[in-house]
Amino acid sequence: MLGGMQDWTFSVTHLIDHAAREHGNREIVTRWADGRITRTDWQSTRTDARKMVRALKRAGVARGDRVATLAMNHANHLVCWYGVTGVGAILHTINPRLFEDQLEYIANHAEDRILLYDAAFAPLVEKMKPRWTSIERYICLDDGEFDQWIADEEEGAWVPVDERDPCMLCYTSGTTGHPKGVLYEHRSTVIHALVALQPAIFDADPQSVMLPVVPMFHAASWGLPWAGAAAGIKFVFSAVNEPKVLCDLMREERVTHSAGVPTVWLGMFQHMDATGATLPDLRHAIIGGSAAPRFMIERLMRQGVNVAHAWGMTETSPIGTTGAKTPDWDSLTFDQQVGIKQMQGRAPFGVELRTVDLGDMRTVLPRDGQTAGALQIRGPWVIRRYFKAEEDALTPDGWFDTGDVGILHPDGTLQLTDRTKDVIKSGGEWISSVELENAAVGHPKVAEAAAIGVPHPKWDERPVLFVVPKDGETVQPDEILAYLDGKVAKWWLPDAIEMVDDIPHTATGKISKKDLRARYADYRLPA
Amino acid sequence: MLGGMQDWTFSVTHLIDHAAREHGNREIVTRWADGRITRTDWQSTRTDARKMVRALKRAGVARGDRVATLAMNHANHLVCWYGVTGVGAILHTINPRLFEDQLEYIANHAEDRILLYDAAFAPLVEKMKPRWTSIERYICLDDGEFDQWIADEEEGAWVPVDERDPCMLCYTSGTTGHPKGVLYEHRSTVIHALVALQPAIFDADPQSVMLPVVPMFHAASWGLPWAGAAAGIKFVFSAVNEPKVLCDLMREERVTHSAGVPTVWLGMFQHMDATGATLPDLRHAIIGGSAAPRFMIERLMRQGVNVAHAWGMTETSPIGTTGAKTPDWDSLTFDQQVGIKQMQGRAPFGVELRTVDLGDMRTVLPRDGQTAGALQIRGPWVIRRYFKAEEDALTPDGWFDTGDVGILHPDGTLQLTDRTKDVIKSGGEWISSVELENAAVGHPKVAEAAAIGVPHPKWDERPVLFVVPKDGETVQPDEILAYLDGKVAKWWLPDAIEMVDDIPHTATGKISKKDLRARYADYRLPA
Repeated sequence: MLGGMQDWTFSVTHLIDHAAREHGNREIVTRWADGRITRTDWQSTRTDARKMVRALKRAGVARGDRVATLAMNHANHLVCWYGVTGVGAILHTINPRLFEDQLEYIANHAEDRILLYDAAFAPLVEKMKPRWTSIERYICLDDGEFDQWIADEEEGAWVPVDERDPCMLCYTSGTTGHPKGVLYEHRSTVIHALVALQPAIFDADPQSVMLPVVPMFHAASWGLPWAGAAAGIKFVFSAVNEPKVLCDLMREERVTHSAGVPTVWLGMFQHMDATGATLPDLRHAIIGGSAAPRFMIERLMRQGVNVAHAWGMTETSPIGTTGAKTPDWDSLTFDQQVGIKQMQGRAPFGVELRTVDLGDMRTVLPRDGQTAGALQIRGPWVIRRYFKAEEDALTPDGWFDTGDVGILHPDGTLQLTDRTKDVIKSGGEWISSVELENAAVGHPKVAEAAAIGVPHPKWDERPVLFVVPKDGETVQPDEILAYLDGKVAKWWLPDAIEMVDDIPHTATGKISKKDLRARYADYRLPA
Repeated sequence: MLGGMQDWTFSVTHLIDHAAREHGNREIVTRWADGRITRTDWQSTRTDARKMVRALKRAGVARGDRVATLAMNHANHLVCWYGVTGVGAILHTINPRLFEDQLEYIANHAEDRILLYDAAFAPLVEKMKPRWTSIERYICLDDGEFDQWIADEEEGAWVPVDERDPCMLCYTSGTTGHPKGVLYEHRSTVIHALVALQPAIFDADPQSVMLPVVPMFHAASWGLPWAGAAAGIKFVFSAVNEPKVLCDLMREERVTHSAGVPTVWLGMFQHMDATGATLPDLRHAIIGGSAAPRFMIERLMRQGVNVAHAWGMTETSPIGTTGAKTPDWDSLTFDQQVGIKQMQGRAPFGVELRTVDLGDMRTVLPRDGQTAGALQIRGPWVIRRYFKAEEDALTPDGWFDTGDVGILHPDGTLQLTDRTKDVIKSGGEWISSVELENAAVGHPKVAEAAAIGVPHPKWDERPVLFVVPKDGETVQPDEILAYLDGKVAKWWLPDAIEMVDDIPHTATGKISKKDLRARYADYRLPA
C-alpha cells in the first residue's frame, strides 16, 4: 500500500553474477603447484560454477549439504566457492595444516559428502579416507579430474536460498577441545564483502590486481573471493607460497594489492634482499592473522605501499578492524604514522567493539588508550552460535568474547596486547605476557622468549620468563632482567627468568603457552 | 540448531551511532545563509538527533508519520535526517524550487505533520500555509527556534524499526501529472550507503573532507548524509551555493571531495578564472544530475582530480552508475580517458541494467556499444512502488523503466543518449534528439537548439530542429544543415530547421520538450 523499494535477497550468487556481467573478461590468473600458469576470467568462472551446480545435483547434493575442499588458492578452488554455494550447499574449506585427529573430527562433524582436493594432498587424503565416515566422493581439483567432471554438464540454475541460509563453514582450531565450526550466512557474507571494498579496508576497484596470499582454506580467505567479485578485480592466485614465486608473479602480473600474514611478507622481504627483486606496482598491503612487526610496516610504507594492518578472526568473517590513515595523518611524523599502523586499526561500520574487565568479565572499560581488557565484538558478520552447538556463543547481553586482550584508544583504535588466557594476574592487576616477551626478544642474544604466570601466595600469580638464547650465545638471567628494566613497568618484571633449550610450538608455528604451562605445571618460584 | 551469525537489523540509526562512537569529534562545518561559520561534530549531531527524537515524541509524532524539511545544507538539517528517522518517522525533504501547486500537492499528499524550514523560505512558507492542510507545526531551523525546541530535552532512545520500514520520502517532479513520492527504506538506505563508500563511487575514508553541493532536498543528497556517517568523513556544508562561497570554503576547510551538478562546477570554474582561486586539496569530484560537458571533465582531470561522472535518479536512491578508471586506464591516451569519463560509468554491485527495444519495450538489446534502447534497472535500492500508488512501477518481469535512452557498451559502461519521450521514431529506427542538439550547438553562431519529432506520412516521425542564434548573429537553416552533415548519420538530418527567438524551459532551466511540442502541435513539415 505505502510503496517502497524492490525485494532483493542477499545471496553470494549475486556476487558472481555481477562479476560475470560487469567484469566478465577480467582475468583470474593461476600459478599451479606444477608451475603452469593459466588464465580464465569471471565469466568462465561463473559458467564453470553453474556447470558444477549441475554436477553436484547429479551427485545428489542438496541445499544445506556440506561439500568440502582441501586445496590451495587457484581458479578451480574459486569455482568451488561459487559452485557449492550456488547449489545451496555449504562450502567447508578444510585447513590441510590441521592435525590428523582434527581433520578426522571436522569432516565427520561437518558430515561432508564430497571432498575436492589438490593432488599435493592426495597422500593425506588416502591416509584419512578410512577415518572419514561421511565422504562419498573424492574429486581431485588440479589433475584434470575436476575439469572432466564438469566438462560435459549444461549450466545449472542457482538454487534459490533464504538470505539467512548458511553458505560456508570454517573450523577454528582452538587450543582446548575439538575444533569449532563457524557457519557464515549468505546475508552476512555479502554485507561483509560490501564493507570490505571501502578504501580503509581492501580499497578495491576495477583497476585492482589482487594476489591473496592468505589461503582460501583460512578464515574464508578474509572474504576476498567474495569481495573481489563485487569489485570486479583481477585475481592472481598462487598454489604455492614460495617467496620467489610470489615476487615473480607480483611483478609479472603487475599486482597492486596483496593480503597475507606477517611471515609471508617476511619471506618476500628476504627474497627481495637476496635478489634485488622489487614490487613496483604494489600499493595496498593487507596484513593480518597476527601482529605485524614495526620494521615490516615501516619498510612497506617507505616503498609507498599503503598498509592496512588488520585484526579479525574466523568467528568475525573475519574483518574486525583495519588500520587506515587518520584525519590528522598529514601532520604526523613518519614515526607516528608507523606507530598508528602498528596498532590494529579501527572498526568499520557494522562492527562494535568493547573491552571489559578481565576480572569480572562484565564491567565495560573506558576507551582511554591505557586500560587493557577482554575484547568483545558484535555485528552482522559476527558469530552467534557455533555449528551444531547447543547454545549461543555470546555473553548474556549479546557480545562475542574474542579471547583477545586489548586497549581501545579514544578514537576507537584497537591495540591488542595479549590473549585472555595468557595474561598474568598479579595483585588484582594484569600483566601482558606478550609485551614481556616482545621486550625480551629485543635483547641481541635472545632467540625466543615466553612468559607465563605461576602461582604466588601473595600476588595470586607472578610472571616467569623462559628464554632461549641464540645459537652459540650464553646469557645470564640477570642480564635479561637488567635489559627489561625500564622497558616494562617495575611490577611487571619477572620473578624468575629460566634459560631453556626450547619452547613448545603449535602446528602453525606459534608459541604454545598451553604446552608450556603443562611442561612447567609443577614449577615453583624460588623462595 | 545449526548455528550462524548474529541478528542485526538494517537501520539508519546504526549509521549515526557508528559515526558518533568511532568518529565522534570529526567535524561538521556549516556556512550559514547569514555568513556565520559554525562547527559541530558527529557526537553532537547524534546527541541533538536524540533530543529531537524526544521533542518529536512530545509533539505526538509516531512511527511512520511524515515530518518535512524545506531547507538548504547545514548541520541542523543533518540533525533532522537522523532525528526524524530515529523516532521511526519518515523524513520528507521538500524541494523549495518546485512550483507552488506542486508544493501544495506534495505536502498534502505526504500528510506532513511538522515542517522544519530555513528562514530564507519563510515568505514561501507563509504563502503556502493556507494551502497545506496537514501540517500542525512549523519550526524554523536557522533562527534559533529549532535549537531552543530541542535544547532542554533529554536524549530519547531510537524507536526500533523493521528493516523494510520506510525512512525517507522524496518526490520527483515528473513532466506530466502530479509529482510522485519515492519511499526509501532503512534497509535500502543502509545498503546504498555501504556500496557508495567504495573507491569507484564516493571513495570515502576517515581522511575525506566532503562538501556536498548537491542539496539535501534533492534525490536524498545522493545518499551522502548516510554514507558520510558510515565512513566518518568531515562534512562541510554551505547553505548558499554562490561560487565564491563554495571556493573559499573548499580552500579554507581543505575539502578533498565534492559532489554536485554540472552547473555548480561551471560556476566555480568561472569564479576561479576570474579570481585566480584554486582548489588545491580537491581530489575526488562526483558529478551527476545531468551530463557533464567534456571540457569540465577534462579540466578537473588535468588538475589531478578523479572524476566520478554518475547517473542515477530519485527512484534509484540515487546511485545507478559511476565512472571509475577502467582496467586498461594506464594504457589509454588522455583523450580516451576523458572519453570514458564522459559516459555515465558502470553499475556497482547491486545494480542491474538492461536496455530494451524502444518499439516493443520488451526485447532486450545487446551490450554492443551501438544500439540505443530504453534503460531499465533493478536492485535493492531501486523503487518498486511509488508512495500510495495502487500498483508497482515495474515492468511485468520486475524492472523499473527509467525513461532514459542509453547505449550499453560491452564492458557495461552506460552512455545516455536521450529521454524515451524525446527520441524521434523514423522508419522504425530511432533518432536521438539530444545528439542532434549537441551537434547543432557546436556551430559558433548557435546559442541553443532543440529537436522534436513531427508526424510524417511515410516515416512515422521526422526531426525538426529549432535553433536560437546567438545575440546579434544571423544564421540560415542551410548553414546549420551543412554544419550537421557528417556529424550525425545522414538519415538523422532534420527535415526542417526553424530559426526561433526562444525555446521554452522548465523551472530548473532545462529545455522543456513538452512545452516545445505543445507550442508546435500544429506544425507540419514543408511539402
